[in-house]
Amino acid sequence: MDYNKKSLELHTKKRGKIAITSKVSLKTKDDLSMVYTPGVAAVAETIGKNKKRSWDMTNRANQVAIVSDGTAILGLGNLGPEAAMPVMEGKAVIFKELAGVDAIPLCIDTTNINEIVNFCKIIAPSFGGINLEDIGAPRCFDILNRLEKESTIPVFHDDQDGTAIVVLAALLNACKVSKKNIRKARIVLNGGGAAGISIARLLLSQGVGDLVMVDSVGIVYKNRKGLNFYKKEVAEKSNKNKIKGDLSRAMLGADVFIGVSRGGLVDIDMIRSMNNDPIIFAMANPIPEIMPEDAYSGGALIVGTGRSDFPNQINNALVFPGLFRGLLDGNLKKVTLKMKISAAIAIASSVKPTKNKILPQLMNKKVARKVAKAIK
Amino acid sequence: MDYNKKSLELHTKKRGKIAITSKVSLKTKDDLSMVYTPGVAAVAETIGKNKKRSWDMTNRANQVAIVSDGTAILGLGNLGPEAAMPVMEGKAVIFKELAGVDAIPLCIDTTNINEIVNFCKIIAPSFGGINLEDIGAPRCFDILNRLEKESTIPVFHDDQDGTAIVVLAALLNACKVSKKNIRKARIVLNGGGAAGISIARLLLSQGVGDLVMVDSVGIVYKNRKGLNFYKKEVAEKSNKNKIKGDLSRAMLGADVFIGVSRGGLVDIDMIRSMNNDPIIFAMANPIPEIMPEDAYSGGALIVGTGRSDFPNQINNALVFPGLFRGLLDGNLKKVTLKMKISAAIAIASSVKPTKNKILPQLMNKKVARKVAKAIK
Repeated sequence: MDYNKKSLELHTKKRGKIAITSKVSLKTKDDLSMVYTPGVAAVAETIGKNKKRSWDMTNRANQVAIVSDGTAILGLGNLGPEAAMPVMEGKAVIFKELAGVDAIPLCIDTTNINEIVNFCKIIAPSFGGINLEDIGAPRCFDILNRLEKESTIPVFHDDQDGTAIVVLAALLNACKVSKKNIRKARIVLNGGGAAGISIARLLLSQGVGDLVMVDSVGIVYKNRKGLNFYKKEVAEKSNKNKIKGDLSRAMLGADVFIGVSRGGLVDIDMIRSMNNDPIIFAMANPIPEIMPEDAYSGGALIVGTGRSDFPNQINNALVFPGLFRGLLDGNLKKVTLKMKISAAIAIASSVKPTKNKILPQLMNKKVARKVAKAIK
Repeated sequence: MDYNKKSLELHTKKRGKIAITSKVSLKTKDDLSMVYTPGVAAVAETIGKNKKRSWDMTNRANQVAIVSDGTAILGLGNLGPEAAMPVMEGKAVIFKELAGVDAIPLCIDTTNINEIVNFCKIIAPSFGGINLEDIGAPRCFDILNRLEKESTIPVFHDDQDGTAIVVLAALLNACKVSKKNIRKARIVLNGGGAAGISIARLLLSQGVGDLVMVDSVGIVYKNRKGLNFYKKEVAEKSNKNKIKGDLSRAMLGADVFIGVSRGGLVDIDMIRSMNNDPIIFAMANPIPEIMPEDAYSGGALIVGTGRSDFPNQINNALVFPGLFRGLLDGNLKKVTLKMKISAAIAIASSVKPTKNKILPQLMNKKVARKVAKAIK
């Protein structure tokens, strides 16, 4: 199926994918007097006296802002805020369908860190949470760091933590199937952007045996020149054996490959050089680091990608709907490390894992409910 | 009917009045591949190459932001952004019901002019227009002035121009019924806030005979001390006879009273002191400047209020849904004086006016369509 052509047709025909709907009737003068003036004045006054009441008298408690500056859209790069809109509308549709969350795309025309932080802070009265999306690294880390301290509502950057959570879930199940021990496994993580750094952080927090990050320059090691603040932090805690070199050096003898980089970077010989029964998560979109058939012919035991047309789709849509459902229902103000790990375990335990089914299907509402429960 | 009690119950039961809904199906893997990745990438790339395509491939062309800082909520004053939410959700329900417009409340936690202007500029890629609401005067004039120059999408401040347009419509029909000539009528305008100043500007642009503005200090006249920039502008062009004093002085011999001030400021004697068959628009909410029965007993020929429980409700909900429908459908970038006058004439001509029906009913979709057509 030619998804590109079909998707272009769908978007042009429907002129976008979301709309506003009313939860109340507005047919009579009496309806109007309750929904709007004069009756709404009593509601405004009640909230004016006690701001907390906005959580139970407006849609705020079910409402999430999806904020993007359009600088890192999917694997496509910086296409601007207008181009981010169809992606964010797609997320809004998934939010609603899988978890009943009302998500509103706000694609903004600024790439300035202070302006983005300030934007997220001033919209807080209208929302129960903020989902940052497709904001380039390393700015996205600075933004999330500041908002984790300064925001009154929970802020989650899906490209960072959503990806990290679903990768942890996939890895837990892949290790189970392959009988590898996550605490002893050697893991190669290819990609030093938002997803790469967040995956590294989450896996290191779980005591993975040895993790080697590779970015566009090569293997990340302590004291390598030109590392940004966030890669330095990873370098401190990873690459136990202080290896240097390129991706093929890193792959030698590794148990797991996790790619959040670019299509075609991995070849069959690299897979052959890995330890027995390697696990390959080639998540670059739309073209994986290595195609599944090539990975299998190099000896891979389990192969996952970001795509829906292969088995083992590793996609953060398994995470964000349930995660925000849980945040909103629990009236929670922060996303903690414990929540992230609980979410990963909830996703992993939603399926009896096999080689071709390490994760549940994306369109599964039960998973969202399970994640929500785990978060709360 | 106790609208306050009923409205509080409704808001608590429904937990807000709006929700997001999806315009597309999301049931199968194929649906997901078109709505989201991988298919949406082609849509993002298309818009990335030509930003104009966002108008036909996202919901932008039907989407309006309702932006408020909560500093001038209804007649209640500065209750903060949380308290503005139920009012803006009410407007969103009216937008959708009367004109099919998807309006999104964004109540923001800042009262800084630069921040509000910047906020409206950076959200432009997600919207087809901006409706400013319940922002206190005179800041709202500075904000609108700047956005009229700097915004790439149309910006309309409902409390200013929405009110002015509906008052002009009501006045046109009231003059018709009372056989008064709008170019000879003496008009007293009580209130020097957002609505008052905008009404003055629009009526003066239409060549009303003599207009006298009264604010909380008294009659506004040229060179009165302490006038803000916007009142000075009104003072230059109004109060032909340079009268000074209080509201009762202004009312002497006047043909029309327009109140956008506070409840109870006008008494029966003031009405008696007016010219024959005076027209009274007592629009303070929820308590009018004078109750209709008192105005009639003082000799008023036509009485209008802002309330739905009296005849002749003068409410800007007759304006904004159709106005934005027209702006969006016409892909218009500015709200011009000509559009405002066309909208007023469209509303006035929607009804065969009588003393008790100078304006059409609020819940009339035909009026919205007529206004939209006039705008385009």
